[in-house]
Amino acid sequence: MNATYNRFDAAKTAARLFDDVAAFSADSAGVSRPAFSAVETQTLKYLEDYARAQGLSVQYDAGQNAVFSLPEDANADRFILVGSHVDSVPNGGNFDGLAGVIAGLLCLARAKSQGIGFAKPVKVIAMRAEESAWFGPCYIASKALLGQLDDSELSAVHKGDGRDLGTHMSEIGINMNRVRQHKPLMDPDNIDCYIELHIEQGPLLIEKNMPAAVVSGIRGNVRHKKIRCIGEAGHSGAVPRAYRKDPVLAMADLLSRLDESWLTILQKGEDLVLTSGMVGTDPEKHALTRIPDLVDFSLDFRSQSADALDAMRDLLQQEVRSVERERGVKFELDAELHTAPALCDEKMVDGLSASMAKVNLKPFTMPSGGGHDAAVFANAGIPSAMVFVRNRNGSHNPEEAMEIPDLIAGTDIIFSYLTEMAQ
Amino acid sequence: MNATYNRFDAAKTAARLFDDVAAFSADSAGVSRPAFSAVETQTLKYLEDYARAQGLSVQYDAGQNAVFSLPEDANADRFILVGSHVDSVPNGGNFDGLAGVIAGLLCLARAKSQGIGFAKPVKVIAMRAEESAWFGPCYIASKALLGQLDDSELSAVHKGDGRDLGTHMSEIGINMNRVRQHKPLMDPDNIDCYIELHIEQGPLLIEKNMPAAVVSGIRGNVRHKKIRCIGEAGHSGAVPRAYRKDPVLAMADLLSRLDESWLTILQKGEDLVLTSGMVGTDPEKHALTRIPDLVDFSLDFRSQSADALDAMRDLLQQEVRSVERERGVKFELDAELHTAPALCDEKMVDGLSASMAKVNLKPFTMPSGGGHDAAVFANAGIPSAMVFVRNRNGSHNPEEAMEIPDLIAGTDIIFSYLTEMAQ
Repeated sequence: MNATYNRFDAAKTAARLFDDVAAFSADSAGVSRPAFSAVETQTLKYLEDYARAQGLSVQYDAGQNAVFSLPEDANADRFILVGSHVDSVPNGGNFDGLAGVIAGLLCLARAKSQGIGFAKPVKVIAMRAEESAWFGPCYIASKALLGQLDDSELSAVHKGDGRDLGTHMSEIGINMNRVRQHKPLMDPDNIDCYIELHIEQGPLLIEKNMPAAVVSGIRGNVRHKKIRCIGEAGHSGAVPRAYRKDPVLAMADLLSRLDESWLTILQKGEDLVLTSGMVGTDPEKHALTRIPDLVDFSLDFRSQSADALDAMRDLLQQEVRSVERERGVKFELDAELHTAPALCDEKMVDGLSASMAKVNLKPFTMPSGGGHDAAVFANAGIPSAMVFVRNRNGSHNPEEAMEIPDLIAGTDIIFSYLTEMAQ
Repeated sequence: MNATYNRFDAAKTAARLFDDVAAFSADSAGVSRPAFSAVETQTLKYLEDYARAQGLSVQYDAGQNAVFSLPEDANADRFILVGSHVDSVPNGGNFDGLAGVIAGLLCLARAKSQGIGFAKPVKVIAMRAEESAWFGPCYIASKALLGQLDDSELSAVHKGDGRDLGTHMSEIGINMNRVRQHKPLMDPDNIDCYIELHIEQGPLLIEKNMPAAVVSGIRGNVRHKKIRCIGEAGHSGAVPRAYRKDPVLAMADLLSRLDESWLTILQKGEDLVLTSGMVGTDPEKHALTRIPDLVDFSLDFRSQSADALDAMRDLLQQEVRSVERERGVKFELDAELHTAPALCDEKMVDGLSASMAKVNLKPFTMPSGGGHDAAVFANAGIPSAMVFVRNRNGSHNPEEAMEIPDLIAGTDIIFSYLTEMAQ
């Protein structure tokens, strides 16, 4: 006991854990760890074996997630929950989710080997089923823990076998009575706060040459999967400008107006991103010499600020009306999808920032663009925070490239917080 | 003989001719009269029977097109050529092409029945194979007549049977030696001028409530079938604006800039139309929450002015460079397709406009957006002109809707020109 902390050894341990899990979850490209699958269970079992070998306690909660702790914290009434998820998207990368679980385990192993106690009891959770890729709904395990899985989510079907989510959950041993009654599987009053480490899904830390950051909040979004702009088909050479109702130029006009407003909003210091990920005229009908009758496109606004999202929703409506008037087209918007932003707990953000300084990193906070289990905890009223680790090439693809020393830097921030800052 | 001209009888005759041809060329929707097909030959034979019944002369030229005239003009050395084509696109409308041939025949029949001579000998030509839908190349018959079919066009294959154009032409009895030597099948020096009546392919005459117009010129074009804008894929929520290379917003920006310049060019009194008929992100990869890595789109500029086309080509290059610099994307342009504008002969345009006034129509000139056989004659140095007839719903589709009284109005303009204005 009371061994000195060796960051190099910690890095070797982390690399081994990642490699072993990758080996048994390898797919044609990258890794596939489907939600509620045997390989997901095998991942928990593998981590359990590692934890036990370190002298840690292992329990399974009512949602069949693995929960690790120091032996003396195993029966604590109230605890800091640290964790993330172990499932992945199909042909995904190995770090999305798993990095946060391994960071938590490394904190426990270090405390155990060095004989250092935490400021408060700590439990590390390895959750299942965060990714929407398998059933459609996302954050399934954390929503179940907090009694928030709704009936339509429970009847969503698996993309592979077509059987519903409720059936899959039941089959791995979850008692579905409480879930179907929307009762929490873990008492929220027992959770002092929630901390999640995750790889960054954008390029900001790469660009800034920083290993890690504290997350200020998780962007909410306003989305339209399909906006249709309807104009009037015609011969590309034979219809003068004044008689055209060209949906492609109308879409270009609308997107350019939104893009311009985006820049203005950023210049005012507000948070916003805007994406049209899917755009297309109808390949059955489109031609080089035909003014198309319609074009479809998607829109995704995200912001940490609910006000900014409301403002963009209004702006979209205004600009749609204006382009319709000026260009004789009609926009049809499908039902809006909407997720509220989740702010990280201010005190925790400050504490984690102070911990960054303690471990000789320059404190830096940034928003999270992607959604995470932390948003579910935060929106359930549990103080929550996140640490991002630098990562190249985004997430949800085999090219995810987190460097292990950066993970260790992020883990050190959390360890420092758990031992010194947590109040 | 010396019967009075009865516009109502002429309309009945025209309607019968259209109906009879439509009946034997009907397809699952609309009509199909493929280039160099049996049904195309049958159409010529049907018109031949009508012409002979009116006491007109009928010959077939070396391109196997039917040529009609008053008996006294059958051997004229030099003549005004009036005509259009009888083929159609697959599932096309009945009026595109055929209207111009029937208008010519009605002029001959009227001259014959009223005993009125033309100011100069007149021959009416019913050409084959104008549409590009069957082999790829267009204006095949007129190009062959003027020795302009090139070798790559002759080796283009039929979309139905895969056999090449040269084989198809040979099989209907065209001696291919002259064609392959690029020698004219009809001596251009014998053609005093060329006049073609055609349905308008845009909505201008409908909008202006005018039955017909004189065409000022045939727009040329500069086209790109596929411009690819290459950016960088990323998570829609996780990449800040400053680090994005979003190809969709770059395309929107480029199209909006071109659209704005288009307006400026029109305000300067120049002729231009601009269309992006095909637009699309890759459906294999695109998603609501993904900044796409690329988007493809087409561009089609058309103008009566070669200078305006050159200016737009330069502007495209400038704006592409500018958007690339500002947005970190890259545009890849495929090989440009280019057709030169064809101006109608000024004296003929003036003469036909004067004829419009003579038949109590308000003189009106407009450009042609679509290409026509007239462009081949004009660009071969033969004075050429066109008359457009009002038509609803564009062309190349079964909903083409020319009204027969409008055709008679257009025919009257040409008859007046042939009898009084032709110098």
